[in-house]
Amino acid sequence: MILTTTLLDFFLETRQHTEDICSPLEIEDYVVQPVVDVSPPKWHLGHSTWFFEEFILKPHAKGYKQFSTDFSFVFNSYYETVGKRVIRADRGNLSRPGVKEVYEYRAYVTQQIKDLFAVNNDSELSKLLEIGIHHEKQHQELLLTDIKYILGNNPLLPKYTDFPEEHAIDDHRAEWISVPEGVYDIGHNSDEFCYDNELGRHKVYLQTYDISNKLVTNAEYIKFIEDKGYKNFELWHAEGWDWVNANQISAPLYWHKIDGQWQHYTLGGLTKIAHESPVTHISYFEAFAFSQWMGLRLPTEFEWEAAQDSFSWGKRWEWTESAYLPYPDYKKAAGALGEYNGKFMVNQKVLRGGSIATPKNHTRPTYRNFFHPNLRWQFTGLRLAR
Amino acid sequence: MILTTTLLDFFLETRQHTEDICSPLEIEDYVVQPVVDVSPPKWHLGHSTWFFEEFILKPHAKGYKQFSTDFSFVFNSYYETVGKRVIRADRGNLSRPGVKEVYEYRAYVTQQIKDLFAVNNDSELSKLLEIGIHHEKQHQELLLTDIKYILGNNPLLPKYTDFPEEHAIDDHRAEWISVPEGVYDIGHNSDEFCYDNELGRHKVYLQTYDISNKLVTNAEYIKFIEDKGYKNFELWHAEGWDWVNANQISAPLYWHKIDGQWQHYTLGGLTKIAHESPVTHISYFEAFAFSQWMGLRLPTEFEWEAAQDSFSWGKRWEWTESAYLPYPDYKKAAGALGEYNGKFMVNQKVLRGGSIATPKNHTRPTYRNFFHPNLRWQFTGLRLAR
Amino acid sequence: MILTTTLLDFFLETRQHTEDICSPLEIEDYVVQPVVDVSPPKWHLGHSTWFFEEFILKPHAKGYKQFSTDFSFVFNSYYETVGKRVIRADRGNLSRPGVKEVYEYRAYVTQQIKDLFAVNNDSELSKLLEIGIHHEKQHQELLLTDIKYILGNNPLLPKYTDFPEEHAIDDHRAEWISVPEGVYDIGHNSDEFCYDNELGRHKVYLQTYDISNKLVTNAEYIKFIEDKGYKNFELWHAEGWDWVNANQISAPLYWHKIDGQWQHYTLGGLTKIAHESPVTHISYFEAFAFSQWMGLRLPTEFEWEAAQDSFSWGKRWEWTESAYLPYPDYKKAAGALGEYNGKFMVNQKVLRGGSIATPKNHTRPTYRNFFHPNLRWQFTGLRLAR
Amino acid sequence: MILTTTLLDFFLETRQHTEDICSPLEIEDYVVQPVVDVSPPKWHLGHSTWFFEEFILKPHAKGYKQFSTDFSFVFNSYYETVGKRVIRADRGNLSRPGVKEVYEYRAYVTQQIKDLFAVNNDSELSKLLEIGIHHEKQHQELLLTDIKYILGNNPLLPKYTDFPEEHAIDDHRAEWISVPEGVYDIGHNSDEFCYDNELGRHKVYLQTYDISNKLVTNAEYIKFIEDKGYKNFELWHAEGWDWVNANQISAPLYWHKIDGQWQHYTLGGLTKIAHESPVTHISYFEAFAFSQWMGLRLPTEFEWEAAQDSFSWGKRWEWTESAYLPYPDYKKAAGALGEYNGKFMVNQKVLRGGSIATPKNHTRPTYRNFFHPNLRWQFTGLRLAR
Repeated sequence: MILTTTLLDFFLETRQHTEDICSPLEIEDYVVQPVVDVSPPKWHLGHSTWFFEEFILKPHAKGYKQFSTDFSFVFNSYYETVGKRVIRADRGNLSRPGVKEVYEYRAYVTQQIKDLFAVNNDSELSKLLEIGIHHEKQHQELLLTDIKYILGNNPLLPKYTDFPEEHAIDDHRAEWISVPEGVYDIGHNSDEFCYDNELGRHKVYLQTYDISNKLVTNAEYIKFIEDKGYKNFELWHAEGWDWVNANQISAPLYWHKIDGQWQHYTLGGLTKIAHESPVTHISYFEAFAFSQWMGLRLPTEFEWEAAQDSFSWGKRWEWTESAYLPYPDYKKAAGALGEYNGKFMVNQKVLRGGSIATPKNHTRPTYRNFFHPNLRWQFTGLRLAR
Repeated sequence: MILTTTLLDFFLETRQHTEDICSPLEIEDYVVQPVVDVSPPKWHLGHSTWFFEEFILKPHAKGYKQFSTDFSFVFNSYYETVGKRVIRADRGNLSRPGVKEVYEYRAYVTQQIKDLFAVNNDSELSKLLEIGIHHEKQHQELLLTDIKYILGNNPLLPKYTDFPEEHAIDDHRAEWISVPEGVYDIGHNSDEFCYDNELGRHKVYLQTYDISNKLVTNAEYIKFIEDKGYKNFELWHAEGWDWVNANQISAPLYWHKIDGQWQHYTLGGLTKIAHESPVTHISYFEAFAFSQWMGLRLPTEFEWEAAQDSFSWGKRWEWTESAYLPYPDYKKAAGALGEYNGKFMVNQKVLRGGSIATPKNHTRPTYRNFFHPNLRWQFTGLRLAR
Repeated sequence: MILTTTLLDFFLETRQHTEDICSPLEIEDYVVQPVVDVSPPKWHLGHSTWFFEEFILKPHAKGYKQFSTDFSFVFNSYYETVGKRVIRADRGNLSRPGVKEVYEYRAYVTQQIKDLFAVNNDSELSKLLEIGIHHEKQHQELLLTDIKYILGNNPLLPKYTDFPEEHAIDDHRAEWISVPEGVYDIGHNSDEFCYDNELGRHKVYLQTYDISNKLVTNAEYIKFIEDKGYKNFELWHAEGWDWVNANQISAPLYWHKIDGQWQHYTLGGLTKIAHESPVTHISYFEAFAFSQWMGLRLPTEFEWEAAQDSFSWGKRWEWTESAYLPYPDYKKAAGALGEYNGKFMVNQKVLRGGSIATPKNHTRPTYRNFFHPNLRWQFTGLRLAR
Repeated sequence: MILTTTLLDFFLETRQHTEDICSPLEIEDYVVQPVVDVSPPKWHLGHSTWFFEEFILKPHAKGYKQFSTDFSFVFNSYYETVGKRVIRADRGNLSRPGVKEVYEYRAYVTQQIKDLFAVNNDSELSKLLEIGIHHEKQHQELLLTDIKYILGNNPLLPKYTDFPEEHAIDDHRAEWISVPEGVYDIGHNSDEFCYDNELGRHKVYLQTYDISNKLVTNAEYIKFIEDKGYKNFELWHAEGWDWVNANQISAPLYWHKIDGQWQHYTLGGLTKIAHESPVTHISYFEAFAFSQWMGLRLPTEFEWEAAQDSFSWGKRWEWTESAYLPYPDYKKAAGALGEYNGKFMVNQKVLRGGSIATPKNHTRPTYRNFFHPNLRWQFTGLRLAR
């Protein structure tokens, strides 16, 4: 457990960092929601604030006065119950509350949390604060990927800001790491923060396997495209094949073939593809099809975790073959926080690692990210196994 | 034909009025598109400007330099062909160009038109300018109704500005106006501006009929609701009945029953319904069902036009029983402007009159407005006939 | 009014003719419903029978014993209220009641009607019987066009039976018939049977017009196709253009280009297109686009009716420019029979004439057929006007 | 490997059994397809025959003459490529080929297989035959559950035939079976036939667990309903909750509450629910929610397989918590048969056991059945674990 003073610093840094991410935006950019998976930046700002208000201030700060009663349903991500006057509105249809008001809301809640923790350093409360901070860090990553989607699907392809991390090259020589058969321990195992879905450290038996020390590169992926990988149904899951055809997918998200040359939209604008960078913005369906084309496969999340000491990771979320399922003895948290993970444990695939959009200290070897197999607006790539 | 100096004033006034309509908005309000029929205010600002650029400046202003080549497809309302970099984006998904840039675009084009007309008072050009002005006036009405939709579907129900016209009461005593059988002349018949769909003045034979001197009021409509008009399939067209059930319609748009009392969202905010105001924000399906419930009917557009001298109108668009069809000898304009009206002449109903959102001088006895029978975000009401 | 003995013969002939239409079918053909507009033949057999049971036998035959209480909701075409055990089933999902049972139902109801009319020749009852007969005749036409759809969309393209009428050629020389301006009487005007939508004979003022003495031929329509009529958005309504693109329409229904030659499925099987036959199986959207391509237009239903003495008709339903609307003083019939016509008077276009599938004596100069503008499984063609 | 003579008997018995399943049907029942997951019985008869023709007779029977070239695309379950004349037709829209012709097709192919195996007892061919037999057995189960769906969704709720197995009661006293922690061997391990998805016997580490010796009963499930299990979102996956609400699910499939009493449609007709029978026709979502309500969980497929010696099973497919994924070293079969299993390994859940509809000898302890989590027209139930 982190000391309260440190924790409060961590809180303030996190709050600040969220706003830093938004600093290059125009007000208009805060509002739109081009597809259902992408939320308006304004909503992320409000929702991460609402979380502290709802779970800490309202139950624990004596005499706490809500910033606005309307906000509780505007910024609740899972609002089953809707207020009388809400007419089925998607997040991207809401021009109000405005950006300025949302920043005021942030400032108000941040101050109230400071005031509360000045007088209360109760460990249960600290635990909640820690969850809220990690929750906000998760939204920092979504904020960045949602901004990329908003700008990258605008016909003007506006630049967000320089973001050289997108062009990093992994210059290791590709090698197989061999892992011997045996029983391995899987799951979180320290006093550091983790989510409930990582807990229940347990034994898993792994057969002998090899895992690559490198992510698949753009150059390799272009060969797959050129070999008509997107046209060969034998490489795809039946649902993947339907997805390719229904959406006319023929390259990773953000890729454009212009005058015979592959370019892609990056946070820094439209640019040529760097052949030696890891491929990214692919769905699980594409990762799987690529592995089939190679005559190889994706690792399971357990294989990944057991070997992760032996390779570098953290630049791209890595699709695994594992479905997102509860660990043995998985216990969901009590109350509303119990909705955090467990209810999503069906029809999703686990991703391991972390990405260039992941805030510092917000991933770890046991971290289990998860998305539906067709999604690709996150920085998602793949590592091969056999 | 209006003199060029007067026409230019008319142009400048119109340009200014569009911006005045937007003056109470926050930047965020300019961006959203809650349903497909509603466009973002930003888009109206840009599109009405693009119209002048595309049809006057580009073909007629020597050496004209486009403000931005990207704008031609962002602000083209019927863009069949899309530029290379456009990824199927709805208008409400576009955060860029920003509001400031759109206003710069407006100022630039307004100035260019001034410059052009300073040196050219050619009558063909004046005609195009006149069309552009009327086009912008049509968008002024849409702008206001779209703003109402954007704010009125926001759970915070924010006020736009005081707008007392919404609460006006028609205190005439209801009376039937009798019109004798005979041949009547229908269609535009003067030198004043009109659209192509009003032209081809022609004779229509009308049977004897009565038409009300008043619009149906909220009080009358509430009786229809209380008599379970929305539950009685006999009053409805088959498609109207499907619409009622699929959308769970039980009152006009913007109406909310709060603590047993009918209130409605107006541009001035949520307020009690004035019983003696004309009912508005109803679809043709509702207007028809109401007339059936009364044992009466809607007038045709010809009955309306032949009698319009005898009653006051212009506060609410009035649904008629007429389908939107070409007049005999209808000729659509040549070129792109020919797409203005003719291609919509199927599956729509004619509305006559005008509304409190219609700009001054932008309607007339022969004006033919048209919408699909399910739409109700315009200020639409009804007048009975028998 | 027809004498009862003659009427009963008319009834029996009609009942027999319905079954004759079905005689070439296999049992399996009676069951399927490939699209929502097409009903299974079994359903037509049952529904036309249910009509007599529901509106004549149940209210008027003393002590009448229903054939089966379940059938009332299986064969009711507009069943708003559904029995307890019905689970949202489309007509084509019902394997039971079986074909044999449906024929038993027909025989039972036919006999009961004979028995009833043997003792009761009341004129109100005769009127109901007459409506029932005409209702069944309408379903005879649908039966035939639905059978064509079922077999013509089966990959085996099975033959129904020889049906030479599909290949008839109109060898008149094309000529314009000129009709002078003036007031014309429109609507039904005799003691013979007609539907409520034809009543209310009234005056209509027509401007001078010309109407063709011939339907448009396949040869002419092929020129439209070859001139890229389906690719030129200027010829189409906006909704027509959407329909063409969403459904990838490039020729009339049932047309197949095989080895460079146009063939079409007919009730007699796949065969070459006869160039001099009238084009058929086109939607209103296509009829309109063709007329635009010719620089001409479709006649209104009033123009058609006023001129129909001067040309031959009855081989193809002819799309008109008129929307399906009530005549002045239209009164819908009381009770359930009032649902027959009025509730469809929105978003549909009028067709005049009759087709090779229309039973003898089941059309007349004032008959108003109507369909949505996108439908084309009926035998629908067009005649030009100017 | 089974001897050829025995194998041929097995083949003939299987072919006969398929037809026996259909013997209570009316011809009309063979044709319909009420939902996309359910195929018409006629199609199962044809498809299981086509499989032998396509994979055995065409490549291996010298001079083999196809019964009909059209059938290859009518009865191909995964037809990516469609013949020229096929117009996007769903299986339930095809009235032809008729039932009689399909039986002739069966007889023809059965005879040809007999003839072929009379002269060729090649082991590779025997292997293909064995796969074809097992393929047909799988379709026997689908045939029965599809028939149940067809008849059970017909408003007449017709009886198929007496089928007492549906009412069987499990009168064991409920007990927990404890399984100690350790490494277990999972996967097929004999010379008997199995599918590729069962192969790759491998070690799995299981933590200590308890598994029930009994399936959950109707009585227990009714308590869940009465305790408002379908109204409590905390028990459901987010996607399950959406499914419940979108489809208004409030009980297992085929259940009807009539006069306050639970009844259900069975193959023998509508009948009262036997409280002590295992609950069936529930989705994975429901099985999971029920387990949550009990404070327990579903077993994984590995837990099930490791313990299956200790309880009786085979009367209901049992949902497990496991996603359908490849075993380590999974190798899909070469050629078209490789499409059999692997391409479905995403977004589906594993079911273990077998059901009263499963043909004799067609399941085994390592058999992995799989369906999407929302489906429930199979005989699906659940067993609890902790």
